[in-house]
Amino acid sequence: MTDPRDGIAATIDQIAFNGEGLVPAIAQQHNTGEVLMLAWMNRAAIEETLRTGQVCYWSRSRLKLWRKGESSGQIQRLVELRIDCDGDTLLLLVDQTGVACHTGRRNCFFRAVRNGTIETIAEVEVDPSKLYGA
Amino acid sequence: MTDPRDGIAATIDQIAFNGEGLVPAIAQQHNTGEVLMLAWMNRAAIEETLRTGQVCYWSRSRLKLWRKGESSGQIQRLVELRIDCDGDTLLLLVDQTGVACHTGRRNCFFRAVRNGTIETIAEVEVDPSKLYGA
Repeated sequence: MTDPRDGIAATIDQIAFNGEGLVPAIAQQHNTGEVLMLAWMNRAAIEETLRTGQVCYWSRSRLKLWRKGESSGQIQRLVELRIDCDGDTLLLLVDQTGVACHTGRRNCFFRAVRNGTIETIAEVEVDPSKLYGA
Repeated sequence: MTDPRDGIAATIDQIAFNGEGLVPAIAQQHNTGEVLMLAWMNRAAIEETLRTGQVCYWSRSRLKLWRKGESSGQIQRLVELRIDCDGDTLLLLVDQTGVACHTGRRNCFFRAVRNGTIETIAEVEVDPSKLYGA
Protein backbone atom coordinates (compact mmCIF):
# COMPACT_ATOMS: atom_id res chain seq x y z
CA MET A 1 0.00 0.00 0.00
CA THR A 2 1.33 3.40 -0.93
CA ASP A 3 1.88 5.85 1.86
CA PRO A 4 -0.08 9.05 1.13
CA ARG A 5 2.88 11.02 2.45
CA ASP A 6 4.78 9.89 -0.63
CA GLY A 7 2.30 11.74 -2.83
CA ILE A 8 2.60 14.84 -0.70
CA ALA A 9 6.38 14.87 -0.84
CA ALA A 10 6.41 14.10 -4.57
CA THR A 11 3.95 16.93 -5.18
CA ILE A 12 5.82 19.52 -3.16
CA ASP A 13 9.01 18.53 -5.00
CA GLN A 14 7.44 19.42 -8.35
CA ILE A 15 6.08 22.82 -7.39
CA ALA A 16 7.79 26.07 -8.29
CA PHE A 17 6.54 28.34 -5.51
CA ASN A 18 6.80 32.08 -6.13
CA GLY A 19 8.90 34.46 -4.08
CA GLU A 20 6.22 34.51 -1.39
CA GLY A 21 6.14 30.72 -1.17
CA LEU A 22 2.79 30.53 -2.95
CA VAL A 23 1.35 28.90 -6.04
CA PRO A 24 -1.98 29.71 -7.73
CA ALA A 25 -4.59 26.95 -7.61
CA ILE A 26 -7.58 26.79 -9.93
CA ALA A 27 -10.59 24.99 -8.49
CA GLN A 28 -12.75 23.22 -11.05
CA GLN A 29 -15.91 21.26 -10.37
CA HIS A 30 -14.82 17.74 -11.25
CA ASN A 31 -17.94 16.52 -13.03
CA THR A 32 -19.11 19.61 -14.89
CA GLY A 33 -15.88 21.42 -15.80
CA GLU A 34 -17.11 24.65 -14.22
CA VAL A 35 -14.20 26.83 -13.13
CA LEU A 36 -15.16 27.88 -9.62
CA MET A 37 -12.37 30.15 -8.39
CA LEU A 38 -8.67 30.78 -8.15
CA ALA A 39 -6.88 31.01 -4.84
CA TRP A 40 -3.36 30.52 -3.54
CA MET A 41 -1.68 27.69 -1.67
CA ASN A 42 1.55 27.44 0.25
CA ARG A 43 3.34 24.25 1.21
CA ALA A 44 1.27 23.75 4.37
CA ALA A 45 -2.02 24.25 2.51
CA ILE A 46 -1.06 21.64 -0.08
CA GLU A 47 0.03 19.20 2.60
CA GLU A 48 -3.19 19.63 4.52
CA THR A 49 -5.32 19.35 1.38
CA LEU A 50 -3.68 16.12 0.28
CA ARG A 51 -3.71 14.68 3.79
CA THR A 52 -7.33 15.46 4.62
CA GLY A 53 -9.00 15.54 1.20
CA GLN A 54 -10.60 18.90 2.11
CA VAL A 55 -9.25 21.88 0.20
CA CYS A 56 -7.24 24.36 2.23
CA TYR A 57 -5.78 27.55 0.73
CA TRP A 58 -3.52 30.29 2.02
CA SER A 59 -5.35 33.55 2.56
CA ARG A 60 -3.19 36.40 1.31
CA SER A 61 -5.41 38.97 3.05
CA ARG A 62 -5.63 37.23 6.42
CA LEU A 63 -2.15 35.69 6.19
CA LYS A 64 -3.27 32.32 7.47
CA LEU A 65 -4.46 28.95 6.29
CA TRP A 66 -7.94 29.21 4.83
CA ARG A 67 -9.89 26.02 5.22
CA LYS A 68 -12.40 26.67 2.47
CA GLY A 69 -15.87 26.53 3.97
CA GLU A 70 -14.77 26.77 7.60
CA SER A 71 -17.06 29.78 8.13
CA SER A 72 -19.62 29.26 5.38
CA GLY A 73 -19.90 25.49 5.29
CA GLN A 74 -19.28 25.66 1.54
CA ILE A 75 -16.44 23.16 1.55
CA GLN A 76 -14.52 21.67 -1.33
CA ARG A 77 -13.71 17.98 -1.33
CA LEU A 78 -10.57 17.23 -3.31
CA VAL A 79 -11.07 14.76 -6.13
CA GLU A 80 -7.67 15.15 -7.77
CA LEU A 81 -4.72 17.53 -7.69
CA ARG A 82 -2.91 18.24 -10.94
CA ILE A 83 0.32 20.13 -11.60
CA ASP A 84 1.04 22.06 -14.76
CA CYS A 85 3.99 21.63 -17.10
CA ASP A 86 6.29 24.07 -15.37
CA GLY A 87 5.04 23.42 -11.86
CA ASP A 88 3.85 26.94 -11.15
CA THR A 89 0.09 26.37 -11.24
CA LEU A 90 -2.18 23.76 -9.67
CA LEU A 91 -5.53 22.53 -10.90
CA LEU A 92 -7.77 21.15 -8.17
CA LEU A 93 -10.63 18.96 -9.30
CA VAL A 94 -13.12 19.35 -6.49
CA ASP A 95 -16.62 18.59 -5.42
CA GLN A 96 -18.03 21.92 -4.26
CA THR A 97 -20.67 21.95 -1.56
CA GLY A 98 -23.10 24.77 -2.27
CA VAL A 99 -21.46 27.88 -3.72
CA ALA A 100 -17.79 28.72 -4.18
CA CYS A 101 -18.05 32.51 -4.26
CA HIS A 102 -18.34 34.71 -1.18
CA THR A 103 -21.04 36.67 -3.04
CA GLY A 104 -23.26 33.60 -2.86
CA ARG A 105 -22.81 32.70 -6.50
CA ARG A 106 -21.80 29.26 -7.62
CA ASN A 107 -18.51 30.50 -9.09
CA CYS A 108 -16.48 33.71 -8.92
CA PHE A 109 -16.41 34.45 -12.66
CA PHE A 110 -19.85 35.99 -12.97
CA ARG A 111 -18.85 39.17 -14.81
CA ALA A 112 -18.49 38.88 -18.58
CA VAL A 113 -17.39 41.43 -21.14
CA ARG A 114 -20.19 41.43 -23.70
CA ASN A 115 -21.02 44.05 -26.31
CA GLY A 116 -18.73 46.62 -24.81
CA THR A 117 -20.05 46.38 -21.27
CA ILE A 118 -19.58 44.18 -18.24
CA GLU A 119 -22.61 42.01 -17.64
CA THR A 120 -23.42 40.03 -14.52
CA ILE A 121 -24.21 36.57 -15.86
CA ALA A 122 -24.98 34.58 -12.71
CA GLU A 123 -27.48 35.07 -9.94
CA VAL A 124 -26.83 34.97 -6.22
CA GLU A 125 -27.93 31.53 -5.08
CA VAL A 126 -27.36 31.93 -1.35
CA ASP A 127 -27.64 35.17 0.59
CA PRO A 128 -24.10 35.96 1.82
CA SER A 129 -25.49 37.01 5.19
CA LYS A 130 -26.70 33.43 5.58
CA LEU A 131 -23.22 32.16 4.71
CA TYR A 132 -21.23 34.33 7.08
CA GLY A 133 -23.77 35.57 9.60
CA ALA A 134 -25.34 39.03 9.63
CA MET B 1 -23.64 50.37 -31.90
CA THR B 2 -21.36 49.94 -28.91
CA ASP B 3 -17.75 50.94 -29.31
CA PRO B 4 -15.50 47.96 -28.43
CA ARG B 5 -13.15 50.41 -26.70
CA ASP B 6 -15.86 50.87 -24.07
CA GLY B 7 -15.54 47.21 -23.14
CA ILE B 8 -11.79 47.48 -22.94
CA ALA B 9 -11.88 50.52 -20.67
CA ALA B 10 -14.64 49.02 -18.51
CA THR B 11 -12.65 45.81 -18.15
CA ILE B 12 -9.38 47.49 -17.23
CA ASP B 13 -11.27 49.55 -14.64
CA GLN B 14 -12.42 46.40 -12.86
CA ILE B 15 -9.07 44.66 -12.67
CA ALA B 16 -6.92 44.61 -9.56
CA PHE B 17 -3.47 44.19 -11.05
CA ASN B 18 -0.74 42.92 -8.73
CA GLY B 19 2.36 44.88 -7.79
CA GLU B 20 3.96 43.94 -11.10
CA GLY B 21 0.96 45.17 -13.08
CA LEU B 22 -0.15 41.62 -13.87
CA VAL B 23 -3.25 39.50 -13.39
CA PRO B 24 -3.49 35.70 -13.76
CA ALA B 25 -5.67 34.48 -16.63
CA ILE B 26 -7.08 30.97 -16.84
CA ALA B 27 -7.70 29.74 -20.38
CA GLN B 28 -10.59 27.31 -20.72
CA GLN B 29 -11.78 25.64 -23.92
CA HIS B 30 -15.18 27.23 -24.36
CA ASN B 31 -17.16 24.22 -25.52
CA THR B 32 -15.66 21.39 -23.46
CA GLY B 33 -14.72 23.05 -20.16
CA GLU B 34 -11.15 21.76 -20.39
CA VAL B 35 -8.79 24.00 -18.43
CA LEU B 36 -5.91 24.53 -20.84
CA MET B 37 -3.38 26.69 -19.02
CA LEU B 38 -2.78 29.65 -16.77
CA ALA B 39 -0.72 32.63 -17.87
CA TRP B 40 -0.43 36.30 -16.99
CA MET B 41 -1.72 39.45 -18.61
CA ASN B 42 -0.88 43.10 -18.21
CA ARG B 43 -2.97 46.03 -19.34
CA ALA B 44 -1.57 45.97 -22.89
CA ALA B 45 -2.16 42.23 -23.26
CA ILE B 46 -5.79 42.62 -22.22
CA GLU B 47 -6.30 45.56 -24.55
CA GLU B 48 -4.81 43.67 -27.48
CA THR B 49 -6.81 40.53 -26.70
CA LEU B 50 -10.11 42.37 -26.55
CA ARG B 51 -9.30 44.45 -29.61
CA THR B 52 -8.13 41.61 -31.87
CA GLY B 53 -9.98 38.60 -30.48
CA GLN B 54 -6.68 36.67 -30.41
CA VAL B 55 -5.34 35.93 -26.94
CA CYS B 56 -2.18 37.77 -25.99
CA TYR B 57 -0.42 37.25 -22.63
CA TRP B 58 2.54 38.85 -20.92
CA SER B 59 5.55 36.58 -20.78
CA ARG B 60 7.16 36.86 -17.37
CA SER B 61 10.29 35.07 -18.58
CA ARG B 62 10.77 37.02 -21.80
CA LEU B 63 9.35 40.27 -20.40
CA LYS B 64 7.31 41.01 -23.49
CA LEU B 65 3.89 40.52 -24.96
CA TRP B 66 3.32 36.89 -25.84
CA ARG B 67 0.92 36.47 -28.71
CA LYS B 68 -0.08 32.91 -27.99
CA GLY B 69 0.72 30.79 -31.04
CA GLU B 70 2.97 33.34 -32.73
CA SER B 71 5.77 30.76 -32.97
CA SER B 72 3.80 27.51 -32.84
CA GLY B 73 0.65 28.43 -34.73
CA GLN B 74 -1.36 27.12 -31.76
CA ILE B 75 -3.43 30.25 -31.33
CA GLN B 76 -6.33 30.94 -29.00
CA ARG B 77 -9.37 32.77 -30.28
CA LEU B 78 -11.15 34.65 -27.52
CA VAL B 79 -14.77 33.67 -27.08
CA GLU B 80 -15.43 35.59 -23.86
CA LEU B 81 -13.46 37.29 -21.11
CA ARG B 82 -14.74 37.02 -17.56
CA ILE B 83 -13.59 38.77 -14.39
CA ASP B 84 -13.82 37.26 -10.94
CA CYS B 85 -15.54 38.71 -7.89
CA ASP B 86 -12.57 40.65 -6.58
CA GLY B 87 -11.10 41.50 -9.96
CA ASP B 88 -7.80 39.75 -9.46
CA THR B 89 -8.26 36.78 -11.81
CA LEU B 90 -9.49 36.49 -15.38
CA LEU B 91 -11.16 33.54 -17.05
CA LEU B 92 -10.72 33.42 -20.81
CA LEU B 93 -13.12 31.22 -22.70
CA VAL B 94 -11.18 30.38 -25.84
CA ASP B 95 -11.15 28.24 -28.90
CA GLN B 96 -7.73 26.59 -28.90
CA THR B 97 -6.14 25.69 -32.21
CA GLY B 98 -4.18 22.46 -31.78
CA VAL B 99 -2.49 22.14 -28.40
CA ALA B 100 -2.11 24.68 -25.61
CA CYS B 101 0.98 23.23 -23.90
CA HIS B 102 4.55 23.75 -25.10
CA THR B 103 5.13 20.04 -24.45
CA GLY B 104 2.73 19.28 -27.30
CA ARG B 105 -0.08 18.19 -25.01
CA ARG B 106 -3.57 19.57 -25.30
CA ASN B 107 -3.41 21.20 -21.86
CA CYS B 108 -0.71 21.94 -19.31
CA PHE B 109 -2.23 20.00 -16.40
CA PHE B 110 -1.08 16.53 -17.42
CA ARG B 111 0.47 15.50 -14.10
CA ALA B 112 -1.92 14.11 -11.51
CA VAL B 113 -1.30 12.98 -7.95
CA ARG B 114 -2.71 9.46 -7.82
CA ASN B 115 -2.03 6.72 -5.31
CA GLY B 116 0.92 8.51 -3.80
CA THR B 117 2.74 9.17 -7.04
CA ILE B 118 2.64 11.70 -9.85
CA GLU B 119 1.25 10.16 -13.00
CA THR B 120 1.39 11.60 -16.49
CA ILE B 121 -2.19 11.40 -17.67
CA ALA B 122 -2.04 12.90 -21.17
CA GLU B 123 -0.05 11.98 -24.23
CA VAL B 124 1.99 14.29 -26.41
CA GLU B 125 -0.19 15.02 -29.44
CA VAL B 126 2.26 17.13 -31.43
CA ASP B 127 6.04 16.78 -31.36
CA PRO B 128 7.33 20.03 -29.80
CA SER B 129 10.13 20.15 -32.37
CA LYS B 130 7.43 20.48 -35.00
CA LEU B 131 5.84 23.33 -33.05
CA TYR B 132 8.95 25.37 -32.48
CA GLY B 133 11.43 24.09 -35.03
CA ALA B 134 14.31 21.72 -34.31
